[in-house]
Amino acid sequence: MKAKIYITLKDGIHDPQGQAVQQSLHTLGFEAVQDVRMGKFLEVDLQDMEKESAEATIKKMCQKLLANTVIEDFQYELFDS
Amino acid sequence: MKAKIYITLKDGIHDPQGQAVQQSLHTLGFEAVQDVRMGKFLEVDLQDMEKESAEATIKKMCQKLLANTVIEDFQYELFDS
Repeated sequence: MKAKIYITLKDGIHDPQGQAVQQSLHTLGFEAVQDVRMGKFLEVDLQDMEKESAEATIKKMCQKLLANTVIEDFQYELFDS
Repeated sequence: MKAKIYITLKDGIHDPQGQAVQQSLHTLGFEAVQDVRMGKFLEVDLQDMEKESAEATIKKMCQKLLANTVIEDFQYELFDS
């Protein structure tokens, strides 16, 4: 299975990186940009796994390592590889 | 309009960050992980724009600032906000 994982800051959590990108976009003339939120995107290859156990594994991986669940949310999609 | 932008390394481009994550996952016992590729994920809010001009704007933003198109690909989705 392949998984795409999206990690985003929770609403209300300050995002200085996003603000810096927004500022740079304004400087480049993209004045219409009202807000930018930065996140992480991971593509993970899992060897020989059923969909259900892959889903459980991905959840555990996010909770233990990939996301800081105090300030970040995660979402994922699974695909047959 | 709101846009979700996914920036990924092109195939064949070395991804040390992804390898480090993969190594850490193995250390934590997730032995089934065969490959990890790290990317970036951005959520961008665009003020009062038609879908077509928003699309053109997002493309330009990626080419000029957000992605390094020599080594990175970008994809995006647009949503009504």
